Amino acid sequence: LEEVLEASPAALLGLSEGDADKLRQAFGITTLRELAEHGHHAGARALLAAAGSPAFDPGPPPAWERRFAEAPLRHYADHSSGRFRVDFGPALYRGRLDRTARVLVVGQDPATDETIAGRAFVGLSGQRVQQLLHKVGIERSYLMLNTFLYGVRGQFDDELRAISLEPEIQGYREQLFSAALEESPIELILTVGSGARHAVDAWAPANARVHVVHPGADDALIVQSWNQALAAITARVDPDAGAAVDTAPYALPLGDAHRMDIPRFDLAFGVAPTLGTGGTHSHRPDPQTIAWRA
Amino acid sequence: LEEVLEASPAALLGLSEGDADKLRQAFGITTLRELAEHGHHAGARALLAAAGSPAFDPGPPPAWERRFAEAPLRHYADHSSGRFRVDFGPALYRGRLDRTARVLVVGQDPATDETIAGRAFVGLSGQRVQQLLHKVGIERSYLMLNTFLYGVRGQFDDELRAISLEPEIQGYREQLFSAALEESPIELILTVGSGARHAVDAWAPANARVHVVHPGADDALIVQSWNQALAAITARVDPDAGAAVDTAPYALPLGDAHRMDIPRFDLAFGVAPTLGTGGTHSHRPDPQTIAWRA
Repeated sequence: LEEVLEASPAALLGLSEGDADKLRQAFGITTLRELAEHGHHAGARALLAAAGSPAFDPGPPPAWERRFAEAPLRHYADHSSGRFRVDFGPALYRGRLDRTARVLVVGQDPATDETIAGRAFVGLSGQRVQQLLHKVGIERSYLMLNTFLYGVRGQFDDELRAISLEPEIQGYREQLFSAALEESPIELILTVGSGARHAVDAWAPANARVHVVHPGADDALIVQSWNQALAAITARVDPDAGAAVDTAPYALPLGDAHRMDIPRFDLAFGVAPTLGTGGTHSHRPDPQTIAWRA
Repeated sequence: LEEVLEASPAALLGLSEGDADKLRQAFGITTLRELAEHGHHAGARALLAAAGSPAFDPGPPPAWERRFAEAPLRHYADHSSGRFRVDFGPALYRGRLDRTARVLVVGQDPATDETIAGRAFVGLSGQRVQQLLHKVGIERSYLMLNTFLYGVRGQFDDELRAISLEPEIQGYREQLFSAALEESPIELILTVGSGARHAVDAWAPANARVHVVHPGADDALIVQSWNQALAAITARVDPDAGAAVDTAPYALPLGDAHRMDIPRFDLAFGVAPTLGTGGTHSHRPDPQTIAWRA
């Protein structure tokens, strides 16, 4: 790979020497790596994505692929607490990795719909968060990351609180969080659930923060917490271009209006069309099995 | 989208007028669409992919995304025969859509591992075909498509033979096949199973063809059929650059050596690491459920 990346694009792409010269003169591009990672390509891709092409998530760009490849999966798999569900894969993110995220959403851990999709926040909880973002006009300029890379067993208790601050787990998590802040114009960090709040408190960036109770909490708690969040978010973040803001408060009973389908542009090509819609589609009848309902 | 695509890259990407001028002079690029679809970008991406970046499949490029969006899913879903398993999504392809495929592999229909991955040829049958390709030195220059977009109920019988030639199904399938031939230097068409042979016979392109019995057939049949294929394929297709050819014949009993893990560069980012390895991981305990074992 390294050798290919450092070669001249002329030789590799069958460009003429004259064309290669123009690339160099116009953009200082002399290697394939420079061509691939040149800012105007990444910018063009982000613009096209915002315009709907592709209509699916192509996966992380090179810098994020490298970061995700460093995930401490071994640490999770070998964890003596047995608190992690590592039989299937982790779910590492959902949303914009193209420097256009303005809201960083932090959750606790992925469940089975997230495992199937290979993305965070896909099941009912994710659909509820999606609707909260929609209400404040954040239709695509978000990035979602989790406190833990794998699903956890049980509640966020004292043991998980301690595990969350283990150097391998905290260090890697904050490496991702920091990369998001450095690359993207993050205006607000939204923490979802107490595990996420604990993680962001430990990190303590200067950015504005809003907290909501977990979308799986008691309905009355959600109504109170999420209504406060509506006001707090709209006070700090403008809606996406062309997006409407709907601050009509949540009210009991919370029903189907309090969730929204996951945008297809957040999911990989080939994901079944029902996943991410109409609530959660899967569960774990035993630790090593996921039962998925169409 | 159309409006964005036709705008000048200068305005959209914050390039100076001078830079935009250089793009125009060097490559005749005046719009974002031309920038995005320019051959040297697609070529650069194919080269990088061959060199291992990204290490996952980013999904179809624009022309193939448009083709796949035209799939006659409604025709399958409403099919009066009830022969199609349409509760989950289709699996449309696996492999190279970047004009580097030299072998077009045609199968019959996707099963549940394929549904989970959103790619064709992922379970045990796919792993057996992968190993056949590996033996003849085809490590990545293949494209796999199916006769039917969804899984079928039962065997490829007279009813399915007729359904396969319905204009909606045959016409769309041949549209994909023809696009593969037009875009990519296909040297050989490998048909896997009788449904695939029937589909390619009906299409009748001039390309060289090799047929093998389905990898789920009786072991003795596989050994005979696949050994003939080894010779026939190596006679017609050179191995990929740097790849070895191993024509040691298949022998009974067929065991774990007669399958190979699906390359991760064929699967979307986020797919669980065990899928595509060690055989088939899922089944359908009832029509609307997939049970997936880690």
